[in-house]
Amino acid sequence: MVRLAKIQVDPSQLEKYNIALKEQMATAIRVEPGVLTYYAVADKSDPSHITILEIYADTAAYKLHIETPHFKKYKETVQHTVKSLELVDVDLIASAKKPDM
Amino acid sequence: MVRLAKIQVDPSQLEKYNIALKEQMATAIRVEPGVLTYYAVADKSDPSHITILEIYADTAAYKLHIETPHFKKYKETVQHTVKSLELVDVDLIASAKKPDM
Repeated sequence: MVRLAKIQVDPSQLEKYNIALKEQMATAIRVEPGVLTYYAVADKSDPSHITILEIYADTAAYKLHIETPHFKKYKETVQHTVKSLELVDVDLIASAKKPDM
Repeated sequence: MVRLAKIQVDPSQLEKYNIALKEQMATAIRVEPGVLTYYAVADKSDPSHITILEIYADTAAYKLHIETPHFKKYKETVQHTVKSLELVDVDLIASAKKPDM
């Protein structure tokens, strides 16, 4: 299961948001077998516009993920920092990367 | 150097486009030291809407990349299949993934 999350953050709360996001990502990858990959990027022209590429083993893994304490803590922390959130279901066409990336 | 490429492909030429894209990605990763990571995804609701996450070692690596024979071949192959192309320069906030991903 692959998804793009497109998030507009309140610019005045961007630091708070990014800290919570990084903590959520690192914890999920470390403790959840079905959370496989995250890349979070911010537009250079507007760092409050964030795109996250998310890869889960399957939809069951995603459903488990959103019930975890670390995900719920993230959602609670960022609830007043996110101005809009768009979730786009996608299919992976291909990926390629250096062995050490 | 990290970038999102947002591409609208002519739906009737999607198979041709995807083959050329995959060949370009695999070759660049294999032969260019400065091409580090690619993820290409297609919207489930419209597979002709493609987003590519591209990571290069630096802008010099990117400038070398666009002069390579495999990139030029890709651009020539897809020139009449791409309806629009938007390149968004981004900064990596964070990435996290399983060791074997």
